Amino acid sequence: MEELATEQEAEESHRQDSVSLLTFILLLTLTILTIWLFKHRRVRFLHETGLAMIYGLIVGVILRYGTPSTSGRDKPFSCSLEDRPFTTLLVNVSGKFFEYTLKGEISPGKIHNVEQNDMLRKVTFDPEVFFNILLPPIIFHAGYSLKKRHFFRNLGSILAYAFLGTAVSCFIIGNLMYGVVKLMKLVGQLSDKFYYTDCLFFGAIISATDPVTVLAIFNELHADVDLYALLFGESVLNDAVAIVLSSSIVAYQPTGENTHAFDAAAFFKSVGVFLGIFSGSFMMGAVTGVVTALISKFTKLHCFPLLETALFFLMSWSTFLLAEACGFTGVVAVLFCGITQAHYTYNNLSVESRSRTKQLFEVLHFLAENFIFSYMGLALFTFQKHIFSPVFIIGAFIAIFFGRAAHIYPLSFLLNLGRRHKISWNFQHMMMFSGLRGAMAFALAIRDTATYSHQMMFSTTLLIVFFTVWIVGGGTTPMLSWLNIRVGVDPDQDPPPTNDSFQVLQGDGPDLERRNRTKQESAWLFRLWYSFDHNYLKPILTHSGPPLTTTLPSWCGLIARCLTSPQVYDNQEQLREEDSDFILNDGDLTVTYGDTTITANGSSGPHTATTSLDGRRTKSSSEEALERDLGAADHEITSRGTRLVFPLEDNA
Amino acid sequence: MEELATEQEAEESHRQDSVSLLTFILLLTLTILTIWLFKHRRVRFLHETGLAMIYGLIVGVILRYGTPSTSGRDKPFSCSLEDRPFTTLLVNVSGKFFEYTLKGEISPGKIHNVEQNDMLRKVTFDPEVFFNILLPPIIFHAGYSLKKRHFFRNLGSILAYAFLGTAVSCFIIGNLMYGVVKLMKLVGQLSDKFYYTDCLFFGAIISATDPVTVLAIFNELHADVDLYALLFGESVLNDAVAIVLSSSIVAYQPTGENTHAFDAAAFFKSVGVFLGIFSGSFMMGAVTGVVTALISKFTKLHCFPLLETALFFLMSWSTFLLAEACGFTGVVAVLFCGITQAHYTYNNLSVESRSRTKQLFEVLHFLAENFIFSYMGLALFTFQKHIFSPVFIIGAFIAIFFGRAAHIYPLSFLLNLGRRHKISWNFQHMMMFSGLRGAMAFALAIRDTATYSHQMMFSTTLLIVFFTVWIVGGGTTPMLSWLNIRVGVDPDQDPPPTNDSFQVLQGDGPDLERRNRTKQESAWLFRLWYSFDHNYLKPILTHSGPPLTTTLPSWCGLIARCLTSPQVYDNQEQLREEDSDFILNDGDLTVTYGDTTITANGSSGPHTATTSLDGRRTKSSSEEALERDLGAADHEITSRGTRLVFPLEDNA
Repeated sequence: MEELATEQEAEESHRQDSVSLLTFILLLTLTILTIWLFKHRRVRFLHETGLAMIYGLIVGVILRYGTPSTSGRDKPFSCSLEDRPFTTLLVNVSGKFFEYTLKGEISPGKIHNVEQNDMLRKVTFDPEVFFNILLPPIIFHAGYSLKKRHFFRNLGSILAYAFLGTAVSCFIIGNLMYGVVKLMKLVGQLSDKFYYTDCLFFGAIISATDPVTVLAIFNELHADVDLYALLFGESVLNDAVAIVLSSSIVAYQPTGENTHAFDAAAFFKSVGVFLGIFSGSFMMGAVTGVVTALISKFTKLHCFPLLETALFFLMSWSTFLLAEACGFTGVVAVLFCGITQAHYTYNNLSVESRSRTKQLFEVLHFLAENFIFSYMGLALFTFQKHIFSPVFIIGAFIAIFFGRAAHIYPLSFLLNLGRRHKISWNFQHMMMFSGLRGAMAFALAIRDTATYSHQMMFSTTLLIVFFTVWIVGGGTTPMLSWLNIRVGVDPDQDPPPTNDSFQVLQGDGPDLERRNRTKQESAWLFRLWYSFDHNYLKPILTHSGPPLTTTLPSWCGLIARCLTSPQVYDNQEQLREEDSDFILNDGDLTVTYGDTTITANGSSGPHTATTSLDGRRTKSSSEEALERDLGAADHEITSRGTRLVFPLEDNA
Repeated sequence: MEELATEQEAEESHRQDSVSLLTFILLLTLTILTIWLFKHRRVRFLHETGLAMIYGLIVGVILRYGTPSTSGRDKPFSCSLEDRPFTTLLVNVSGKFFEYTLKGEISPGKIHNVEQNDMLRKVTFDPEVFFNILLPPIIFHAGYSLKKRHFFRNLGSILAYAFLGTAVSCFIIGNLMYGVVKLMKLVGQLSDKFYYTDCLFFGAIISATDPVTVLAIFNELHADVDLYALLFGESVLNDAVAIVLSSSIVAYQPTGENTHAFDAAAFFKSVGVFLGIFSGSFMMGAVTGVVTALISKFTKLHCFPLLETALFFLMSWSTFLLAEACGFTGVVAVLFCGITQAHYTYNNLSVESRSRTKQLFEVLHFLAENFIFSYMGLALFTFQKHIFSPVFIIGAFIAIFFGRAAHIYPLSFLLNLGRRHKISWNFQHMMMFSGLRGAMAFALAIRDTATYSHQMMFSTTLLIVFFTVWIVGGGTTPMLSWLNIRVGVDPDQDPPPTNDSFQVLQGDGPDLERRNRTKQESAWLFRLWYSFDHNYLKPILTHSGPPLTTTLPSWCGLIARCLTSPQVYDNQEQLREEDSDFILNDGDLTVTYGDTTITANGSSGPHTATTSLDGRRTKSSSEEALERDLGAADHEITSRGTRLVFPLEDNA
């Protein structure tokens, strides 16, 4: 009978699991149907993620106040251990042995809350679910669908925003919040410890921007592609930076007496942790991407799209696991894996596998993202350890405003010194405005809610996400119109070069000289990378690029012949054309740095490039290709898109 | 420091989780690459599932004998409870509270084995993973990709094989095994209890056939479509029957003193459980399928393939959860949901969503299936509670042979009495030969390995799966050739009707009369279903079929007008044509029962049908449509495929 009771209990537990998952599925279904209705009626003031949160909130309220408390049923048994807790516990129940596994620590004040409500407990997921199941497809998809042409054109600015900007934002927010905490202590609003490192940690997690709603509207209205690239690139990379930054702050543990004062050794250790984890994760992602590219190049898997897609999926997932197993950050590794896969492997896939992989990750991304946002809505009511402190919350809102401002405006000013295409004030305001917080901030905040300070941060993060997604998301369309940002730009089908480009090419003497200098100073790194990528990586990893036999020194002849795919000789140019939609049009690399020098040096420049494109070339040096690409890219930039008066639509 | 130790332990545990998952991913990657090599070189003696098992075995051996035992590190703590075990345990460790969750019972003899080897423990999944994560996509895909035309043509036989056949097989195997168990008791080979119900349970789990390797070869060689339909249909449905049958046997718990003798009340309760679970699961699957069809019909979701695909995925998944939450069997519900989705919803999807959903489930199915087979290979060495009893194993092999024989031959004889297209001896031998055991038998066996008898059954099932997949899978190609079964049949592009059909139409007097009688006796149920489906369900749930305004009585005019989609009036015929590839060509329904009567009644029959197809019909009665379809279907059957001499290829 005992056995039966246990079995029934397990069955009951399984049933509740099913019901809780079903709740989320129904939430998502509702979200999808409503979103369809919104899209159908062209309502743009509420994005699907915002909607998912609202539905989540409603269900959260129902679960919180509508379901009966079942606390009496399962009084937890207490038994004392002298030693540290084990991961596995063996319990002897009247002669039978049962195995228990550690779930986590419970703060003493909350003991009576455990098991308070089965349903609430069931809908509360292990935070690691976000990091191990839901975030990877989201982040991978971000990397895989990066519009590479525009991304690489603005690479320098994006990297600056992501690395410098996130660090600045983290530092500013951390310090402002430390002020707020000091104030709270003075007023007597703080009942537990709240250290400076906690404030910095908060700064790190809240610096992960996620302008998902803004980008969705950009996509729909075809807003300016450069602004899109800046925003998207920054948000993707600063997620990675924020994760690693928060781990480094956690790793900052000064030794000795004064455990919460500054310690240079611990600080440098943290910096080392940051660099180590970031570069390690980057390497992992790049390596598995490269391995997949090699496999897909040298096998004829493309005859079997199912096998190819399965392999692609497995290799991308293995990146995550490999990084986690080695102690790096899986989510960051997955991001760089996605970028590598898009840059190399994508070229080797069969046409069917290309659409399969894109669609597969699109669906996974869509489901995971909306799931997280529903969960956020739900968590506001079902999470049991909320600490809402009005002072802290107001302080946090002010801090993220200043943090974002200190991140965007000074950096944009510095970047504009080097950029030919200045980031205009309108763009800067739009970037300032688009500093939404989303899935990543939430996942980082919920990961550790053990202490008082972390619980307060979690509750505050939740409110910040709600506020920014709803208000900022809803305000994007009017904001775009108000800031006069051009829409209706077609990023892929650039119109053919017209006479307009001529005006840009007319640089005056000193300007030309400056640009020449800029090119020599800043662009050498990109030129180096470009020529390496174009001459060695692309030919080795894909079927495109110049044959290795022409780029490698002659003594590597045998290896070069083995590695070069036969297609290269035949349809080198043809493949390049195919690439251009989804994959980096490599030439865009250095344009950011004002390199119109090649075309501006002589009026025959562009023509030479065009001629070399037409002619059947058996040998292409990297310089030649770069020149040609730069010429082409230059045409493109100057002639792309028209500034439209934004049609003011239904702005709520 | 304590906290730190726990954290490090959790991190270590997470790392090991990653490594174990990574192991499986590498296994799958290896399998994919080898399978590509095999396909590339047209090797057919080993299927991907067989290969996955071999790789699993190798890794299992390495893990078992190659990794150090880490038993000393985590001695489990024992503490005694007087009461029954709780699902949650609260443990006080020097003032801090930790929550533990119940993992399962451990038999007393195995206590020292717990934690024996962390790695082995990590690669051992919770058996419920199979039922809740891996089986649903496999089973759904089976239902969704059922070749409906041939499935429905042989529906009667398939149902007979699946229901009667599985029951017969279960009963025969159960009884034979009970004899073996008795023998073992006599010889002294049995050290613990082994009841009659255990034997029947074994009969149920081992009756779930899974001719995955045979079907793969059939697909590749385009073997006879009717045989394919019989095998595939039977295997899909008998999985469902075997699951429900095994639950009913577990539910057979006689009350009173003599707990393991026959008890009529308990027996009828078990029968009731079988019927209840089966019909309940069927209903759940059908209902969610119908709801999805309605949603996809009445919204314009097909403008947004991503939303449509996501909705389709969520609704199909919710079937599973809904059934589980209501106490039915999710896997069975998912099967019927798949069939319903294919029959109705598929028609409403946009072209992109059709390929997206098919490809999505194809990839999921592929990954899940190969994962299960790798896991099987691994489990042979890493599972810690194996009991190999040579007598039981040999007995089991003999029993499944006789069970299969007693299932196929007598049933085929009975079916042949009613079938026009007799199931030839060759087909019967092939079906006998194709009784492989696979994922479902394994999942059912591993679900409960608590007792001695169940552990012995699990080990035996594992060996049976290995043996049948390797030997039978490898022998399929020579067997096909030896049994002279035609290959190279194109199931979709039936050649146009030729004069051949005339020979079949010439029925002699008595035969015609008998067929007429058979039609009136057996086919009325199908005629009823057909007319209901064609006149009401199809028009309500899809954009095809006759307008409801013509089929519903006139007083339902308003409802009929609301439910009928405007497309129906326009392109009724056109849509029917589109269906025919993937979705049931409805007319095939009754052909199994020898209903050539309509065309045989008068020589003008088929011509009338053809004429009515040509003319633009504004009103179609179900009888008329059925007649037309039967005529068409008849043409088709008689002229489809040519008997080829099987090209004997590289048969190992």
